[in-house]
Amino acid sequence: MEAKRSLLAIFLLLSFLSISTAAPTRKTRTRKPCKSMVFYFHDIIYNGHNAKNATSAIVGSPQWGNKTILTGQNHFGDLVVFDDPITLDNNLHSKPVGRAQGFYIYDKKDIFTAWLGFSFVFNSTQHKGSINFAGADPLMNKTRDISVIGGTGDFFMARGVATLMTDAFEGEVYFRLRTDINLFECW
Amino acid sequence: MEAKRSLLAIFLLLSFLSISTAAPTRKTRTRKPCKSMVFYFHDIIYNGHNAKNATSAIVGSPQWGNKTILTGQNHFGDLVVFDDPITLDNNLHSKPVGRAQGFYIYDKKDIFTAWLGFSFVFNSTQHKGSINFAGADPLMNKTRDISVIGGTGDFFMARGVATLMTDAFEGEVYFRLRTDINLFECW
Amino acid sequence: MEAKRSLLAIFLLLSFLSISTAAPTRKTRTRKPCKSMVFYFHDIIYNGHNAKNATSAIVGSPQWGNKTILTGQNHFGDLVVFDDPITLDNNLHSKPVGRAQGFYIYDKKDIFTAWLGFSFVFNSTQHKGSINFAGADPLMNKTRDISVIGGTGDFFMARGVATLMTDAFEGEVYFRLRTDINLFECW
Repeated sequence: MEAKRSLLAIFLLLSFLSISTAAPTRKTRTRKPCKSMVFYFHDIIYNGHNAKNATSAIVGSPQWGNKTILTGQNHFGDLVVFDDPITLDNNLHSKPVGRAQGFYIYDKKDIFTAWLGFSFVFNSTQHKGSINFAGADPLMNKTRDISVIGGTGDFFMARGVATLMTDAFEGEVYFRLRTDINLFECW
Repeated sequence: MEAKRSLLAIFLLLSFLSISTAAPTRKTRTRKPCKSMVFYFHDIIYNGHNAKNATSAIVGSPQWGNKTILTGQNHFGDLVVFDDPITLDNNLHSKPVGRAQGFYIYDKKDIFTAWLGFSFVFNSTQHKGSINFAGADPLMNKTRDISVIGGTGDFFMARGVATLMTDAFEGEVYFRLRTDINLFECW
Repeated sequence: MEAKRSLLAIFLLLSFLSISTAAPTRKTRTRKPCKSMVFYFHDIIYNGHNAKNATSAIVGSPQWGNKTILTGQNHFGDLVVFDDPITLDNNLHSKPVGRAQGFYIYDKKDIFTAWLGFSFVFNSTQHKGSINFAGADPLMNKTRDISVIGGTGDFFMARGVATLMTDAFEGEVYFRLRTDINLFECW
């Protein structure tokens, strides 16, 4: 009699569990990151005079633009490719821990905003592997969220959100982005 | 005795469950969306005469192309950057609920097909946040599926599939895409 | 009495389970792929003389570059759009099973490295649907890992890692990439 009640309880428990596992995307998932990291990266755009130091260059531009000066109308249409040093603090001259590689395209005439596709590539004792990012970067906002769309090596199958903040901006040649990475899927 | 049988049942249940949770990717997952939305976006390509209304511009082209007219050979090689209004219906003049920002590249000589990387950016009472997309867009197909690769804000960590349909096409200047978004991972 | 102990055990089990399901990203997940595939794709870059055979073309270049010859400084800044045949073996003349469509941008001055955004598009009896990729491709490494960021059709909601290997390289016109795809999320 007691055992029957116990087995009934187990049966109910089992039914409940099979429902919850059959629909894994229905659950409210925790929003606590499984990994958090902060990095800075430093972009020096080629302007015709700084080939030695430049870490990025304009490689596409609209009909009215050119490739040595960012175009008017909030740079709408300029495509910039970059290979920027990543540092742990906000000092351009700190030892890089990796490279930020990819591109951004200014995509709006009225205000500064860009679309980013890039990777953080690490090959040090601290981190090996890459983190891949994509998303819209409305530069006039103090913080902007983009997606971590995947990762390899130490960041195998990572997903999450990266919050970008413009940490410094000098003329139209140098800018520094603080990147707060929060991963919500870690393997 | 009865209790032993109950404990055995619990043990077996526990074993079964630990197996199923150890391999979360092996489960057959439900294909029922956790969120579905329909939007339209409107692309007006700069053609040398419509700077005021244009929402997109050619910023890369092959050696034989230029930046005011889409290239022959099915526009192969044209890179277009856009910042298009998103509406809830198919009327270009409806109040926009957000902006579709990013790029497409025509990537085939024989037929119209493109590769897309873009975001829907929302900042209204209805939706705040962004949805990020990537994928191939074989334009000659009535419907084309691309991936939702991430999201932020209201669409935090979203994944899914977006089905694109060309809803209108006028000359080589205006087109309107219907986008049926189905999310299968919601947080 | 016995039943009470059983119910206590069930309660403890339930507590344990609700903790583990409330934090699905905390689990150690299996790294055994749910699907593995090997493909080759073949890229023939337009060089001004091979319009008939070329499967890719330079569509963006830095200020010092042009669109018929890959630029010096490890092609830094060249943006290439491609529509390449995919084959099951390493023979360019084998019957294609799909097309690799998208772009790469050489993003570093010191060594060959690129950023890739592309899709495998299948429409055969064997496979229907697409696999979307993004990531950094440091070409000088024997193997390079990029992310599978999504999929459609037969590859609905796929996630994983693709390992690229340069299988052949002839001058600066032809190269062949072996792509080992390992999916770790299958639906």
